[in-house]
Amino acid sequence: MRDFAPEKAGKKQWIEAKIKTVFERYGFVPLETPVVEDYGLLAKKGSGGEAIKDEIYCFKDKSGRELGLRFDLTVPLARFVASNPQMPKPFKRYQIGPVYRYDRPGASRYRSFTQADWDIVGSTGTMADFETIAVAIDAMKGLGFKKGEFKVRVNNRKLLEEVALCCNVAKGKIVDCFRCLDKLDKIGEKGVEKELVEKGIDAQILGQLNVKKMNGLKLKDTTPLEEMEGLLALLKKNGLDAFVEFDLSLARGLEYYTGIVFEVCVKGGPSVGGGGRYDKLVESYGGQATPAVDCSFGVDRLLDVLGERVKVQKGPKVLVVPVGRELQEKALDLVQKIRGLGVNTAMDLNSRGISKNLDYANKLGIPFVVILGEKELKAKEFSLKEMASGKEKKIKMADLGKLQKLVE
Amino acid sequence: MRDFAPEKAGKKQWIEAKIKTVFERYGFVPLETPVVEDYGLLAKKGSGGEAIKDEIYCFKDKSGRELGLRFDLTVPLARFVASNPQMPKPFKRYQIGPVYRYDRPGASRYRSFTQADWDIVGSTGTMADFETIAVAIDAMKGLGFKKGEFKVRVNNRKLLEEVALCCNVAKGKIVDCFRCLDKLDKIGEKGVEKELVEKGIDAQILGQLNVKKMNGLKLKDTTPLEEMEGLLALLKKNGLDAFVEFDLSLARGLEYYTGIVFEVCVKGGPSVGGGGRYDKLVESYGGQATPAVDCSFGVDRLLDVLGERVKVQKGPKVLVVPVGRELQEKALDLVQKIRGLGVNTAMDLNSRGISKNLDYANKLGIPFVVILGEKELKAKEFSLKEMASGKEKKIKMADLGKLQKLVE
Repeated sequence: MRDFAPEKAGKKQWIEAKIKTVFERYGFVPLETPVVEDYGLLAKKGSGGEAIKDEIYCFKDKSGRELGLRFDLTVPLARFVASNPQMPKPFKRYQIGPVYRYDRPGASRYRSFTQADWDIVGSTGTMADFETIAVAIDAMKGLGFKKGEFKVRVNNRKLLEEVALCCNVAKGKIVDCFRCLDKLDKIGEKGVEKELVEKGIDAQILGQLNVKKMNGLKLKDTTPLEEMEGLLALLKKNGLDAFVEFDLSLARGLEYYTGIVFEVCVKGGPSVGGGGRYDKLVESYGGQATPAVDCSFGVDRLLDVLGERVKVQKGPKVLVVPVGRELQEKALDLVQKIRGLGVNTAMDLNSRGISKNLDYANKLGIPFVVILGEKELKAKEFSLKEMASGKEKKIKMADLGKLQKLVE
Repeated sequence: MRDFAPEKAGKKQWIEAKIKTVFERYGFVPLETPVVEDYGLLAKKGSGGEAIKDEIYCFKDKSGRELGLRFDLTVPLARFVASNPQMPKPFKRYQIGPVYRYDRPGASRYRSFTQADWDIVGSTGTMADFETIAVAIDAMKGLGFKKGEFKVRVNNRKLLEEVALCCNVAKGKIVDCFRCLDKLDKIGEKGVEKELVEKGIDAQILGQLNVKKMNGLKLKDTTPLEEMEGLLALLKKNGLDAFVEFDLSLARGLEYYTGIVFEVCVKGGPSVGGGGRYDKLVESYGGQATPAVDCSFGVDRLLDVLGERVKVQKGPKVLVVPVGRELQEKALDLVQKIRGLGVNTAMDLNSRGISKNLDYANKLGIPFVVILGEKELKAKEFSLKEMASGKEKKIKMADLGKLQKLVE
């Protein structure tokens, strides 16, 4: 678990704000559930599944109650919906916050990471799936990703299940099979083949996944395929087909998915988000049968991928420096006036000389320094130094609007 | 630990955003430290103190490492500063996030609550203290509190210590004495007197705290009193004296405070924030000797106090309803265009009739509903219904700018 120093924290918050704007544009409303949940709830059968269960941070509080840190934002949402049946449906909610997985840390894998999650609860069918994917695409565009720089891989678990059944995978082994397939990116086809065989699963399914179309397989139930084609058609009609790719090999790791699944992938980079339909989860927490679809971004991964592309000026625009301790109170007066204009402003709090203050402004990336000396004060003015050019300008105290314009 | 349903979450985020604006106005930059820290770090001597130690949620991870959930944001900051000595000073940082205390839950006391914390690290003296308090006052004003509706109570622990020494409190009992005094609001003077006596502390100090001035006491060291007076004078010069009250009885619970302490109190309500100077904490985490001052708001308490005063429209402004399933795709097309104009918009995802959709809009507080029927589509227009007045208007598809203006 790591700290985000100011520059990184500023970029992270910029990403979160951009995504949040898109959530709200699509009519999602915020929900906040706590980081700590009942362990039993997190580890429940039909929730994340066996793989995630081992990764839950769990502990007992002083009264002996078993608690755990949430591993995603969808399970707590399902718990919330189950115990608040009065929420009007569809309930379109977003939540941005940290989640925890006791995983081996690695490249872009963290034990604590921030998810930006959006869900449509109480809608079945293609329109809700479409909206969920459209949010992902608009958010990626909002973050500055261009066409061709990312793709949303889409699949349908029911379809994959039909294919698996056609390939001699026993019904009782489907969950295991999906868990193996989910590792394709990580351990490759050979690795997955080995795992499938170890689990006693016919590996011929692997031969069916490299193609974008059904490889002449006769599916028993063609509904999932029709659902998939309906969604792809709708995406195309709305001009989003260039951002989407049907990928039959996509399984997703979490057990609760029941239908469409998708993953947001950056070209040549990691997956930065994913989700899918989970029509049984709310029910499994004691709620009414409630269809739902979600997606979430991994904010830390977006931050890793965007890196230098994000330019954020989070610190103050202006540093005010009094020349000598006697002018400190006059400087403070000026500072409060500048702040009153809505300009983010710091002042010298340590009674340091000008050169030390300029050095400080440089280190912090503060673009402007106001210098207030005895002479300036008498002339009812101050100096404004632009750090990038080194140029100085005198500005009258009575003309703070001029300063405001210059620093914007 | 509780959920914040959308309306409350919206208000909470509004409060956080308002406070954040003030932080940035004063030149503070964001830092994000994790929720989980080493238990030893949190429980360290000289950190929160014995009282808070019992309230830390602690647990072991699978490798046997002792971890804890942070009880505030200042201790993790001190850890960060100690291990990042290269950070230019003063380091003015803010952080907004949840903290955890295994406390008896009660009115406005939660086991998980959100702090909005701001600290100036690496500055000693009155200017930094002033800025910290000024942020509190500006933030309270930004949240809509008027003069007279809140006060910042200010004291200085060094001064209180001098007074305690004058009142026969032994040096070794000062920490215990402060911990008792901190309970004045909770258990009253009688309760504190009882606790003081139980701990073998002379209770005559209580007689010295009811006055706003030194009650003729001869202090051995008058520096703390002069510091206090200097700060009060500076606040007065900047027109902030109406928001501030010197209160010798204020002790604050956390052990790490070494100088000035303050508390933001709402008239007739609870304390909604507080802080003080902690000049030894960074050093105690292995850093260089680094003076610092902090304050933090309890966001949950602000939310409790503000309650109905905050009006936030977080949900969509417009709900688009196609009349009949055949118009769904046309409606989606319209929805995406309205969203493209920056208007937060939802659409009927469940193919429901108009009256059910109007009911839904009512429940969610969506102020406008767009109705798209066969007739309207032919005329290249749609109906816009204002929910409050019930009035309907026809708007041409080509004139979406009109819709945009009407719903703003």
